[in-house]
Amino acid sequence: QRVAEGTLIQLAQTHKPKPDPNGLVFGTVFTDHMLTIEWSLEEGWQKPHIQPFGNLSIHPGCSALHYAVQLFEGMKAYRGPDNKVRLFRSMINMKRMLKSAHRACLPSFDCAELLECIRKLVEVDQDWVPHSDSASLYIRPTFLGTEPTLGVKKPNKALLFVILSPVGSYFSMGAKPVSLWADSKYIRAWRGGTGDCKMGGNYGASIYAQYEAVDYGCQQVLWLYGDDHQITEVGTMNLFLYWINEKGEEELATPPLDGIILPGVTRQSILELARKWGEFKVSERYLTMADLRQALEENRVREMFGSGTACVVSPVDRILYQGENLHIPCEGSLPPLASRLLKELTDIQVRHQTHNTLHGIFYSPI
Amino acid sequence: QRVAEGTLIQLAQTHKPKPDPNGLVFGTVFTDHMLTIEWSLEEGWQKPHIQPFGNLSIHPGCSALHYAVQLFEGMKAYRGPDNKVRLFRSMINMKRMLKSAHRACLPSFDCAELLECIRKLVEVDQDWVPHSDSASLYIRPTFLGTEPTLGVKKPNKALLFVILSPVGSYFSMGAKPVSLWADSKYIRAWRGGTGDCKMGGNYGASIYAQYEAVDYGCQQVLWLYGDDHQITEVGTMNLFLYWINEKGEEELATPPLDGIILPGVTRQSILELARKWGEFKVSERYLTMADLRQALEENRVREMFGSGTACVVSPVDRILYQGENLHIPCEGSLPPLASRLLKELTDIQVRHQTHNTLHGIFYSPI
Repeated sequence: QRVAEGTLIQLAQTHKPKPDPNGLVFGTVFTDHMLTIEWSLEEGWQKPHIQPFGNLSIHPGCSALHYAVQLFEGMKAYRGPDNKVRLFRSMINMKRMLKSAHRACLPSFDCAELLECIRKLVEVDQDWVPHSDSASLYIRPTFLGTEPTLGVKKPNKALLFVILSPVGSYFSMGAKPVSLWADSKYIRAWRGGTGDCKMGGNYGASIYAQYEAVDYGCQQVLWLYGDDHQITEVGTMNLFLYWINEKGEEELATPPLDGIILPGVTRQSILELARKWGEFKVSERYLTMADLRQALEENRVREMFGSGTACVVSPVDRILYQGENLHIPCEGSLPPLASRLLKELTDIQVRHQTHNTLHGIFYSPI
Repeated sequence: QRVAEGTLIQLAQTHKPKPDPNGLVFGTVFTDHMLTIEWSLEEGWQKPHIQPFGNLSIHPGCSALHYAVQLFEGMKAYRGPDNKVRLFRSMINMKRMLKSAHRACLPSFDCAELLECIRKLVEVDQDWVPHSDSASLYIRPTFLGTEPTLGVKKPNKALLFVILSPVGSYFSMGAKPVSLWADSKYIRAWRGGTGDCKMGGNYGASIYAQYEAVDYGCQQVLWLYGDDHQITEVGTMNLFLYWINEKGEEELATPPLDGIILPGVTRQSILELARKWGEFKVSERYLTMADLRQALEENRVREMFGSGTACVVSPVDRILYQGENLHIPCEGSLPPLASRLLKELTDIQVRHQTHNTLHGIFYSPI
């Protein structure tokens, strides 16, 4: 509250037309306003500023441009059938952002204060939260080192900004199953690196592999790790395998947070939901391509899907590995567990009622 | 020539005062002009533009800010005793830049044309090349994805810009030997990653470790790799070990370009110089901390030094490894081989004569 009350608000004089929620391409349309907050070592955090969406003026020596001193977050605001707008588990994003900031040598901030500023921004642009079941307002907090000198060092200046984009489904094809290219030629993240933080460098380094996947007729990269080809993540999503494991147990499994896995909010929510159900074993464990291949041969694989804020749940139907197409069961376009998780998560995202109401915008903890 | 002739030149109306070449802190002062060249998928490369140094106007959804679709180069222009300005082996930088661009999914460019644009920029700001033995003009080409949308993909827009900064010695302490913290907790680069390209993400991810090195009373990180603690690089420099190797041979050794090592221009120049001398074995080979420790115990280590455009040659006198201080021989502050290499390289950089003269600025191939 304290920060939001100090927020300088400068409203846009003109308003862009709202796009058709059915034709949205992820992250291409932005709302009328953005939030900027500057920091300097000498003066600390400056007043948050909600202002018309527009270009940033950036020093060409800025450390975000030369040394990728930068990180981001991704979260969504949903409009429910009650016409209320909700943020989904946004405090988890704030805490992850703080962790990324620490790793990037960017300054600390108060998570609750930042979230309140973001809530205020969403409130200002609330007409941009789509009136649609399949669309939402994507919130992109970004944090940059703006040190205007070329030494590789902790920045003495920084800029945190937040932009908003109405989005439909992340993949242009909608909820269709994706095919994956699994090859150890490119490695997304490694121990002692930054794979568990949402730093920009993780993403830029992945684009080349993504196009190689496309060259091989697949849509996304299945990132492997180590000589035993551990399964880690898919493109920009976490990965789940729903199977009968090597001990004959029904299990929903995802790789553990051992430093190379991004701790996804959707990942965490799926684990918590499935554990609450208590219907099968839910594990954070290592999975190798050999485990998967053997399970496929023995018909023990039920489903495989990616999870993420942008896509929520995205089923996998094929993996190209060592020249061989591994076909993953994928009933219909959205198999039963993926479908149930998508429905339960969406219900929480658009319908959850809590007492934590702030100015008509609900936070929805699961 | 073709591009340079098409270059739009807009001269600055005012000129900043030139700094004292003896008090320069690396990368803090910039010249009066910069070069910008825009690219888009539809229209290709636009006309190069030399314009007054100033802030860039950047879309807040720009892929350089979110996904570190960015890379840079570092090279220097030197003023010789003949008052002529020379660029040192700059075509190698252009080719490395092109390689980084390929890895970052940024568009190709013509190396000779870009170099000619850079030469033109240096010519416009030639009064900024310090009249000093110990100072030079640092040239920082930077290449950004400026795609203004949030999907993680190949950018459809890009901006290449070049800024210039008069610099003294990279390390504020001058040519004093540096101490290193060797720990496998943080890994700079890994196979299947981007460690052999000059992409921003490699650098931002390294800053945290650098401060941990300082906490341990050391100045730089000695980056290790693998279970056998291979020696790879130092901070932002390549590393050389001059020793009597395990076979009793006098050897100058540096890790091979196996994908995790930045192919430094100074590294290459040192290898070529030492091979030309033919006085001892010159090797690109693996070196582990165990190799180093044993050699130190047996008094087989003569010198160790980092190499880079910014520092040229930077001797190492101490490594903190597994709680133990390993003392590296370091006669005077600049031991004999490091001193000889520094002198020969500097001679080439500031005095080399070639027939490849363009508008009074010499390129100096070694």
